[in-house]
Amino acid sequence: MRLSQMLFVTLRDDPADAEIPSHKLLLRAGYIRRIGAGIYAYLPLMWRVLQKVSQIVREEMNATGAQECLLPQLQPAELWKESGRWDTYTKAEGIMFAFTDRREQQVALGPTHEEVITYVARDMIKSYRQLPQHLYQIQTKFRDEIRPRFGLMRGREFIMKDGYSFHTDEESLKKTYQDMYQAYSNILRRSGLKFRPVEADSGAIGGSGSTEFMVLADAGEDEVLYTEDGKYAANVEKAISLPIDAEISPFTSYEKRETPGTETIEKVCKFLKCSPTNIVKNVLYQAAYDNGMTVLVLINIRGDQEVNEVKLINELTKLASQYGAKTILSLTIPDAEAQSKWAAKALPLGYIAPDITNDSIKSDKAIAPEFLRLVDRTVVDLKNFVTGANESGYHVVGVNWDEQIKLPELTVDIRKARPGDRAVHDPQQMLKSARGIEVGHIFQLGTKYSIAMGATYTNEQGEEKPLVMGCYGVGVSRLAQSAVEQSYDKDGIIFPVAIAPYHAIISVPNINDAQQMEAAEKLYLELNQAGVETLLDDRNERAGVKFKDADLIGIPFRIVTGKALANGKVEVVKRATKEAQEIPIGEVVTTLTNWVQEAIK
Amino acid sequence: MRLSQMLFVTLRDDPADAEIPSHKLLLRAGYIRRIGAGIYAYLPLMWRVLQKVSQIVREEMNATGAQECLLPQLQPAELWKESGRWDTYTKAEGIMFAFTDRREQQVALGPTHEEVITYVARDMIKSYRQLPQHLYQIQTKFRDEIRPRFGLMRGREFIMKDGYSFHTDEESLKKTYQDMYQAYSNILRRSGLKFRPVEADSGAIGGSGSTEFMVLADAGEDEVLYTEDGKYAANVEKAISLPIDAEISPFTSYEKRETPGTETIEKVCKFLKCSPTNIVKNVLYQAAYDNGMTVLVLINIRGDQEVNEVKLINELTKLASQYGAKTILSLTIPDAEAQSKWAAKALPLGYIAPDITNDSIKSDKAIAPEFLRLVDRTVVDLKNFVTGANESGYHVVGVNWDEQIKLPELTVDIRKARPGDRAVHDPQQMLKSARGIEVGHIFQLGTKYSIAMGATYTNEQGEEKPLVMGCYGVGVSRLAQSAVEQSYDKDGIIFPVAIAPYHAIISVPNINDAQQMEAAEKLYLELNQAGVETLLDDRNERAGVKFKDADLIGIPFRIVTGKALANGKVEVVKRATKEAQEIPIGEVVTTLTNWVQEAIK
Repeated sequence: MRLSQMLFVTLRDDPADAEIPSHKLLLRAGYIRRIGAGIYAYLPLMWRVLQKVSQIVREEMNATGAQECLLPQLQPAELWKESGRWDTYTKAEGIMFAFTDRREQQVALGPTHEEVITYVARDMIKSYRQLPQHLYQIQTKFRDEIRPRFGLMRGREFIMKDGYSFHTDEESLKKTYQDMYQAYSNILRRSGLKFRPVEADSGAIGGSGSTEFMVLADAGEDEVLYTEDGKYAANVEKAISLPIDAEISPFTSYEKRETPGTETIEKVCKFLKCSPTNIVKNVLYQAAYDNGMTVLVLINIRGDQEVNEVKLINELTKLASQYGAKTILSLTIPDAEAQSKWAAKALPLGYIAPDITNDSIKSDKAIAPEFLRLVDRTVVDLKNFVTGANESGYHVVGVNWDEQIKLPELTVDIRKARPGDRAVHDPQQMLKSARGIEVGHIFQLGTKYSIAMGATYTNEQGEEKPLVMGCYGVGVSRLAQSAVEQSYDKDGIIFPVAIAPYHAIISVPNINDAQQMEAAEKLYLELNQAGVETLLDDRNERAGVKFKDADLIGIPFRIVTGKALANGKVEVVKRATKEAQEIPIGEVVTTLTNWVQEAIK
Repeated sequence: MRLSQMLFVTLRDDPADAEIPSHKLLLRAGYIRRIGAGIYAYLPLMWRVLQKVSQIVREEMNATGAQECLLPQLQPAELWKESGRWDTYTKAEGIMFAFTDRREQQVALGPTHEEVITYVARDMIKSYRQLPQHLYQIQTKFRDEIRPRFGLMRGREFIMKDGYSFHTDEESLKKTYQDMYQAYSNILRRSGLKFRPVEADSGAIGGSGSTEFMVLADAGEDEVLYTEDGKYAANVEKAISLPIDAEISPFTSYEKRETPGTETIEKVCKFLKCSPTNIVKNVLYQAAYDNGMTVLVLINIRGDQEVNEVKLINELTKLASQYGAKTILSLTIPDAEAQSKWAAKALPLGYIAPDITNDSIKSDKAIAPEFLRLVDRTVVDLKNFVTGANESGYHVVGVNWDEQIKLPELTVDIRKARPGDRAVHDPQQMLKSARGIEVGHIFQLGTKYSIAMGATYTNEQGEEKPLVMGCYGVGVSRLAQSAVEQSYDKDGIIFPVAIAPYHAIISVPNINDAQQMEAAEKLYLELNQAGVETLLDDRNERAGVKFKDADLIGIPFRIVTGKALANGKVEVVKRATKEAQEIPIGEVVTTLTNWVQEAIK
């Protein structure tokens, strides 16, 4: 392509509304244009990057035997009602575009396709002899984000590869899951990215196990905890760890103490001269289930620890059926107003006891929510601890479980792991923290959707069994932007060769110099014929402008048909290192072909 | 791909809700599955067909210098309000999905992208030196059809290539338009389709000239009128012609006649013993403009002719501005109820005069619509004609213009051309009729969108001018189905080689026969390596089932590793002709490679 004929406009200044480097650079370099909030046009350069990423994805998927297809973006609401996800995805925190069509039917725009593919599988798969199957698609997805941000990272419209596999059993699923683990690793490696697979929470997708593929970058929205021995890495939402040891309590006997103005752990510690690890902290949450049920949750957790709300939601979701509900719609910290609705008198916030009960909070009006106490494992082994006395301005110290306060049998892990904690697999290893951009996520779904939607097969014994499912997603447009976020400098983007829109750019310093243009035209033709995808900057612009633009858009190799022509040479500059060398014209095609091959192998 | 591992299910019977052969066949052959009204999953075979069509489109577009990009499917309402099309596309007969998002903003799902691309061009194109530009995309589009039908032909979600070009002037536009005419012809030819480019109405897209590319098929929704000299072809919506000559009127003097019970042309002719060509027929329409204005339209047209409502809408749209409106929202034939709202007394339907006026219909309540008389050219030369006397049960005969009734200066062409009419370019040529499926449409838009949205450039003289635009669309999924509609037999689909999902299928009659499987596996490997895309039917099914399925899905060449193996041969059957021949195993790859090359060159 000739730049003189391309719709190519670069911007000198950072656009006002772009927050992170990759977003700014993609806008400035003319890869994308904003059309609306979280909605972008992918201009010709960007489209080439996306096509290259898609092609790598396609090759790796096909190599595993997965079959490409395309499912509809419009999805009938009935399918989501069958799976039980309609409310979760459309109400409260839901992120699905949903509306009523001209036929007065509810439809949604697919953010994901478990329902549609399970519907197809239910229709087409009848026998174990048809299994396993794995279908995937590369498609634009939609999320009705209230605050879209970071360009393509969290847009309302984005391109994903999503695949769904169907199996007779968990063993077959695990094999495909492993194949996908490998395929996803290949995709990211081939795209030229530094990444880390991490254990992840399965969230609204569900299932028994999942791995996220994180592209490492400072602007990543996710925090990853890992050990340096390479044996553990997890999203902080999912991470487990051993907390630091609790200090010995300075208290040896049970006593109620007046502790005025100590509503925070910090203040209690200061006042009582103890460590946060000596305290049982009691935290209140209010959970709303999809059937209208509200549950008040009291958590006992060690004073130095924080609640991991993702883990908490998972625990509460497990309990949903006992409240006659399916899913949680929201989780909030109850404020005074909420309390006043259901409590006869305000709870002594900052001084709540670990074991308040339904009765202790119920108002006469009996409209109080259900009450649930969850005990985090960090408090189990505490001795002579400090905790709230359930009376404003008072704590109890020197408390021991089952002496003054009962410890329930069931305890859970709902604490946030954090850097500095010891690893579970090897307490010698400390967890470290890194920022990542989630570009892939693979799930062992199990039978969640097949049971809900009645997608079954007949096994060898003639019995009807639910299909066992997996699903696998990689964000194509997000991956492309994450490559920029991981690789740029003050002059612009440094695209990995494998996903750069073009491999090389020939910058002609002066298009009115016949010799320069002739050499450039010849190389342009020969390089493209040799498979080195090459741009020709034949614009009527100064050389400086051309070099700046080439650097900004991040083409890996720049060829300058300038002064060196006098010696039968051209200057070739590597974008990543700025390393420049003069190469005889006759060797340019071979050299560039080798460099490209080397870089994408 | 091995059929044993593919999600491949064929149906014995025609699905109940499929109306035309191609729709039935695509469902039966496992290419598509219905997910909802007008919403389909493209299964792996279909996806390959769509990818092949897309690739042909892409190659032909790139060859013209057009640049591929991808524009968003979500479109902010503001853009459509700027162009003035929001109401047309969302109200009354509109076909755009539109809804309010979580941010309380109106958004739509793109059925077309003039607004978005004009917005991008306005932002990026500043100077004549950047022109011309041509951007295109291959993308899923949406139409909120009330009655989706015919499978992919008129779905609510479908794949299109749409391209938009920008120019300094009409001359540059015409050049690109001609390039697109050629590119579209190439696309259809290379896809193996019989087609005809025809003059077309530009409809809601607008602009000064447009050509549709019609794939010829009996089930086509469109009627094409053409002459056998190849010099004229047009969509019936757009077609012009010379009507047959009027007969000499049997009446020689003006007279009012009692003609009871003659509300139709047929009855008048019978009663008065005259030809329909002797009659001036007066037809009423009611048009609603987007500003709420209603206009009552009386049309004078020759008795044997019909009103072309597309031409009528175009005439009324031209007049919109004089009523302070932009577009027409609906065109209906006023019924008794409508009349009773605005007429003091009912109009004498069947006996209306050609020249009734506003006053003659206005009720005392003065809520009557504006009144407009449109005279079709077919009535201009009539002598001694018959027409309504504006009194129930009475006609006037022997009428002459400007003697008894005034003829306005302005006349229009709003009649429907029809087979048997004479061609305008050569009255010796008769118009003939054919059915077609519109798969492509190219438009000279001119400055409609650039003026409305303020997309300008600076010309060589430093003046600001509106961009001159063209747009070009081809229905990728519709093209794929139209290929089936054009080419099938009682046993199934006969796909053209260029867009068949696979070129060949190896049917192993008995997979338990080691020799048969060995020969098949070897050919499967070699053919695929040679670029002959080959399926292996290694399912544990009877040979008859395999042959039936191969015929049904329409793979061009079937290879049977059966009895002929004894002589070192395999049977090869051509799907289109059922012609079978035995070919030595060693020659299969060369033969098939040649056949494929021959077919797609």
